[in-house]
Amino acid sequence: MKNYSAVGKDIPRTDGVDKVTGRAKFSDDVKLPGMLYGKVLRSPHPHAKISSIDTRRARDLPGVRAVVTGEDAPDIRYGLVAFSLLCDRHILAKDKVRFVGESVAAVAALSPEIAEEAIDLIQVQYEPLPALHDPEKAMKSDAPLIHEDINSYSPEGGSGREGNILFSQEFENGDVAAAFEKSDLIFDDTFHTPVVHQCYLEPNSATADVDHQGKVTAWVTTQGSFGARDLLAYMFNLPNDKVNVVPTEIGGGFGGKLGITIAPISVMLAKKAGKPVKVTMTREEEFLNSMPRYASVIQIKTGARSDGTLLARQVKVIIDAGAYASFSPAVAMSAAMGSGGPYNIPNLKAAAFSVYTNKTPGGAYRAPGVPQMAFAYESQMDIIAHKIGMDPLELRRKNGLKKGDSTFDGRELEKSTFKTVLEKAAEGIQWGGKPKGANRGKGLGCGQWTTGMNPGGGLMKLNEDGTISIISGMVDLTGSRTILAQIAAEELGLPIDHINVITVDTDTALPAPLSGGSTITYNMGNAIRLASGNVKKKLLKLAAEKLGEKEEDLEVKGGAVKVIDSSEKSLSLAELSRISSESKGEPIIGAGLTHDLPSCLTFVAHAAEVEVDPETGVVTVLDYSACQDVGFAINPMSVQGQIQGGVVQGIGMGLTEEYIFDGDGKILNPSFLDYRIPTSADVPKIKTFIVEEASPKGPYGAKGVGEPPHVPPTPAIANAIYDAVGVRVKEFPITPEKIRMALKEKLGN
Amino acid sequence: MKNYSAVGKDIPRTDGVDKVTGRAKFSDDVKLPGMLYGKVLRSPHPHAKISSIDTRRARDLPGVRAVVTGEDAPDIRYGLVAFSLLCDRHILAKDKVRFVGESVAAVAALSPEIAEEAIDLIQVQYEPLPALHDPEKAMKSDAPLIHEDINSYSPEGGSGREGNILFSQEFENGDVAAAFEKSDLIFDDTFHTPVVHQCYLEPNSATADVDHQGKVTAWVTTQGSFGARDLLAYMFNLPNDKVNVVPTEIGGGFGGKLGITIAPISVMLAKKAGKPVKVTMTREEEFLNSMPRYASVIQIKTGARSDGTLLARQVKVIIDAGAYASFSPAVAMSAAMGSGGPYNIPNLKAAAFSVYTNKTPGGAYRAPGVPQMAFAYESQMDIIAHKIGMDPLELRRKNGLKKGDSTFDGRELEKSTFKTVLEKAAEGIQWGGKPKGANRGKGLGCGQWTTGMNPGGGLMKLNEDGTISIISGMVDLTGSRTILAQIAAEELGLPIDHINVITVDTDTALPAPLSGGSTITYNMGNAIRLASGNVKKKLLKLAAEKLGEKEEDLEVKGGAVKVIDSSEKSLSLAELSRISSESKGEPIIGAGLTHDLPSCLTFVAHAAEVEVDPETGVVTVLDYSACQDVGFAINPMSVQGQIQGGVVQGIGMGLTEEYIFDGDGKILNPSFLDYRIPTSADVPKIKTFIVEEASPKGPYGAKGVGEPPHVPPTPAIANAIYDAVGVRVKEFPITPEKIRMALKEKLGN
Repeated sequence: MKNYSAVGKDIPRTDGVDKVTGRAKFSDDVKLPGMLYGKVLRSPHPHAKISSIDTRRARDLPGVRAVVTGEDAPDIRYGLVAFSLLCDRHILAKDKVRFVGESVAAVAALSPEIAEEAIDLIQVQYEPLPALHDPEKAMKSDAPLIHEDINSYSPEGGSGREGNILFSQEFENGDVAAAFEKSDLIFDDTFHTPVVHQCYLEPNSATADVDHQGKVTAWVTTQGSFGARDLLAYMFNLPNDKVNVVPTEIGGGFGGKLGITIAPISVMLAKKAGKPVKVTMTREEEFLNSMPRYASVIQIKTGARSDGTLLARQVKVIIDAGAYASFSPAVAMSAAMGSGGPYNIPNLKAAAFSVYTNKTPGGAYRAPGVPQMAFAYESQMDIIAHKIGMDPLELRRKNGLKKGDSTFDGRELEKSTFKTVLEKAAEGIQWGGKPKGANRGKGLGCGQWTTGMNPGGGLMKLNEDGTISIISGMVDLTGSRTILAQIAAEELGLPIDHINVITVDTDTALPAPLSGGSTITYNMGNAIRLASGNVKKKLLKLAAEKLGEKEEDLEVKGGAVKVIDSSEKSLSLAELSRISSESKGEPIIGAGLTHDLPSCLTFVAHAAEVEVDPETGVVTVLDYSACQDVGFAINPMSVQGQIQGGVVQGIGMGLTEEYIFDGDGKILNPSFLDYRIPTSADVPKIKTFIVEEASPKGPYGAKGVGEPPHVPPTPAIANAIYDAVGVRVKEFPITPEKIRMALKEKLGN
Repeated sequence: MKNYSAVGKDIPRTDGVDKVTGRAKFSDDVKLPGMLYGKVLRSPHPHAKISSIDTRRARDLPGVRAVVTGEDAPDIRYGLVAFSLLCDRHILAKDKVRFVGESVAAVAALSPEIAEEAIDLIQVQYEPLPALHDPEKAMKSDAPLIHEDINSYSPEGGSGREGNILFSQEFENGDVAAAFEKSDLIFDDTFHTPVVHQCYLEPNSATADVDHQGKVTAWVTTQGSFGARDLLAYMFNLPNDKVNVVPTEIGGGFGGKLGITIAPISVMLAKKAGKPVKVTMTREEEFLNSMPRYASVIQIKTGARSDGTLLARQVKVIIDAGAYASFSPAVAMSAAMGSGGPYNIPNLKAAAFSVYTNKTPGGAYRAPGVPQMAFAYESQMDIIAHKIGMDPLELRRKNGLKKGDSTFDGRELEKSTFKTVLEKAAEGIQWGGKPKGANRGKGLGCGQWTTGMNPGGGLMKLNEDGTISIISGMVDLTGSRTILAQIAAEELGLPIDHINVITVDTDTALPAPLSGGSTITYNMGNAIRLASGNVKKKLLKLAAEKLGEKEEDLEVKGGAVKVIDSSEKSLSLAELSRISSESKGEPIIGAGLTHDLPSCLTFVAHAAEVEVDPETGVVTVLDYSACQDVGFAINPMSVQGQIQGGVVQGIGMGLTEEYIFDGDGKILNPSFLDYRIPTSADVPKIKTFIVEEASPKGPYGAKGVGEPPHVPPTPAIANAIYDAVGVRVKEFPITPEKIRMALKEKLGN
């Protein structure tokens, strides 16, 4: 491995101290002169016609400055917008509401308290309609329609619309029917997963201002300022240059802040009030109406030889979109495309459906669609292993993708990386080793992930004092500023604290990718390498000229350009900055844009050891190991943190987290007290193992890291529970109640 | 003249509506989470030793978060810093106070009210020292010393220090003594000018935050963010990259916001409190301790032939620095260098002095030092004309600089522009025409100005939608964003509303010049022309490649690159943006830096008609005409506005404005009620006449516009008053009292 000076090192996140001490300025910290505060009136019904809205009393309340309803909302334009988001929703409900919590009206007032009071004074007459909560029932041809006009929506909206099915698509590789014929054993299982929230600490908040020329400025917590800008422009039918998005520091996103939640309402209020308006969601509103993980139903049928060789698989994945489409077609496709997992399944057929129900609409959450699918295929891998009496590790070894195999999307593998990753994860908890205690068990979970591609650009300037500023529109979700500083420091031979990474608004920045899809290091890292290369080229050229040397005899090192292996002739970066501006009239700047980077594949394997209390059904995770191919760890400490975070969220999803709905579609646990995310007492120390199989195009070989570790935890835990007490729960979270019921069924007590 | 599409047009200021409707975000509008409010305790004494400061009771007041005194202030480093500011002052007084209003201590608290209350609880023991208010007395060798240690200050501080004289320098052109010998007549007059405030509407305000690594961020109202950054870094002994200055919208500056007034105290408080701290000055504090125009004493001795030909001049200018040096050496030199005015005076000697007194320290105000000097030499021109019985216009015509003459600083003139300017101004009020009414009179005032040079840089990016963003650190004081948008629109054939001019912080921006010295259009305009040229070159190259044409056959026009004189082949700027990023991995950006632009000379002449009420001494300005060579008016409406504003401020200075001190150095009129700036009822419609003698290096020939119109008003009015009622007042403001006293002396009533 190359001898790097700044990458490959454990560097504490530059934003760390500010974020943990509360100095960082988050979205709700924005305060503008004359700013008003907005609140939203939300539907109490899962499905109802709106007969009338009377806002008079609210408007008359002293301190109220604007009241808006669906009538004030711009007409919807159906279609696909940024991030594959399918737009079929008015900013405020018109004519109908389709889920409990849907935005119906909003108020801007001098204080949040007045706005809240005004909200209570708005009188809405509803005519309740029959509501649908089960996607399989909603798919039936005689189900009541949630979107009556679906077929008038734009053709871009997707194919396969019928009834409440808003999207469907099917793929086949090989000949699945024939392969099932040849199989010795066929396994057919159905798995259910609930709505799960990302539980970022910072709720959505947006402050909008609309100037006299109609230009919108919005300060928002977002994972992608350019996407947010495009969405706002789309919704308000404005050219992109009439919207400026200022991304604030973000207090967690996990995919939930890819779309746009509250900003359009802030904009409507700001426009009507003629003043800046901030709307910050409460935690309850976050649960009612943000963009949580989609519930799903996954039927998975797999054919195998009696020696464990997998021959065929047929999958049907139903994504419960909730009341509006949002990302659901993309998520359904993502789940379907990932249904082979990291295994060589020569014949595979997958059908993806996205279906309207009267639930809260979903969105993206860390590896959208894939943890649900991995829960299904990895639970079934253990069902197969146990059926044929094979060690679950051995079954995975046998079928794992290896050198020469082709993936579902047709890429041929050059190495057998999955095996390396799998073995390390298993070793991490001494798989097959030490005798277990009573009611203890071990389980494996595996996955794959494709680091996607988003174009991204960054600008770099050499300052007069020889330091470097990196200027981009990138949002720092996961330590990206630190990563980019490391890359620039590496390329330009500078200490890291000479690099200042600055996030600016969309008016100022070059187009930046979303901080999501595990792509930011991949895309922005490459953009900054390009920019650094441009700066370096200029430095070498200028220094060669001034020192009377050849460029190839010079190097950029230690804050100067110097003659290689000599300490005599050199020009500091500060001097070169001055020379360039004084003698050339040119600043030393460099820009880089990435485009059309190939996606890259990564593998991940986890192993868990649990103990189950058979009397209470309570599961304790005793040991956990996670191994992942990260290509190259630019900041190993940061990579470990991401892996550990992904596991913790997976443990929560596997054991405790879910939206609980009553029969009327009302969420019963919209608070951190009742919606139970794991605390530090609920998780063991997560052991992390990093494998580095360089990707050809990633910076220094790096691949995306953020999403893969969230894929395997639910099946690893489900499989460990089965290993511990012999019950198979096909629906997460695997709560004590479900374990007790399964044990009762199995043992009769 | 070239047929321009965007420059040379009347374009309303893009920032206008926001500024007049209060939407613009000024410095006091900054609100940060956890922000505290600061207040300053100021000295009641003009000169005193500080025996002790007891802050205990202030610290104990609930809600107080930090109290700072001179002990907390960083040690001073004497020397010349940004903008020729001479640093000899602690942020908070140590050991001594030297003027009434000097900052002694400061408090940060949860509210401004608590901070104010805490200020009152700080107990300071002073031992009063004898105070000096008259610079001529302060110059005497036996005067008490205001800065005892002056000779230990750094040698950079300047030459000629002696006693309270902090700076002195002398020049001579020709042989003045010999020329006086040859003169038929010698005139020797002394003029006095008072301290005058810029009276920008927005008081100084600064919010500072210091992060865990000691990095300072300061949101300030400033005319130059880079200068402010350099000053803060200097004062706190930090490297430049550890200070980030965010310039807010500015509500007027006129030179008064070139230096740095309150920000260092905000930084000290923020550092001590560990929280952001905002300090906004009251109007009273603005008068006590900002950076007003220096009082001066100017002795001017001129020798002339009896035909009016000027032969020799000797000038002594004393700038009353007040208690600290600040810009006073530079201002004294500026006044001395300008003492020849726009006239050909072959033998000229000038001595400049800057002297400490116990007054409030001064700073820069629109054409620093020059209006004082013009009052002197232009009043004397009329004295000479009346003495020899020559029309004042004729005397100026006769001696005015013309083609072939050399200026005091040695530049040879290629044209007789002054004559053109002079004649137009005089014509504007029908000089020599219509019979005057009783007690009415006309007067002329003339001046010259050299547009200085500051390096400046700007960055331009082509956005995906084909619009342009201009990104710089420039502060928009006088409509500069509109000017830069016009220039970019002109160069790139775009409508002006496709250009977005953005001001960013010093971390993000290329170095930007101060918005002062009438240089911003000159420097930044050139930088943006360079940047536009770079963008254009890239557009043409890419389009030529894609269209299969030669670059020279293409033009950039109407938002596209097209084949000249053909409408068939073209690529829009949006398409070219996409092509560049997708196929080249390069954004289309352009940067420009200006450096070493030559300074350029401009002439200005004003003519005023007044009526004097002999009973009350009240002066009414009846008519006013102002003519100026602006090189090229990029935005004539904006140029007219600047000229009119300069005249109005000049009328105020000529007739009503001044600091009134009591015998103890206390200011008696520190409010807009008692310090009387003209209202719209006090000024006539100012007629403006624009002459356009292109400067070789200005953008499209433009020269600096902002300062020259403030040079001639005081003498134009003084001369008109003499013409009306025959009294000569040699000290502005020429108040009713002074006129009455002069009339009484003259007429004995």
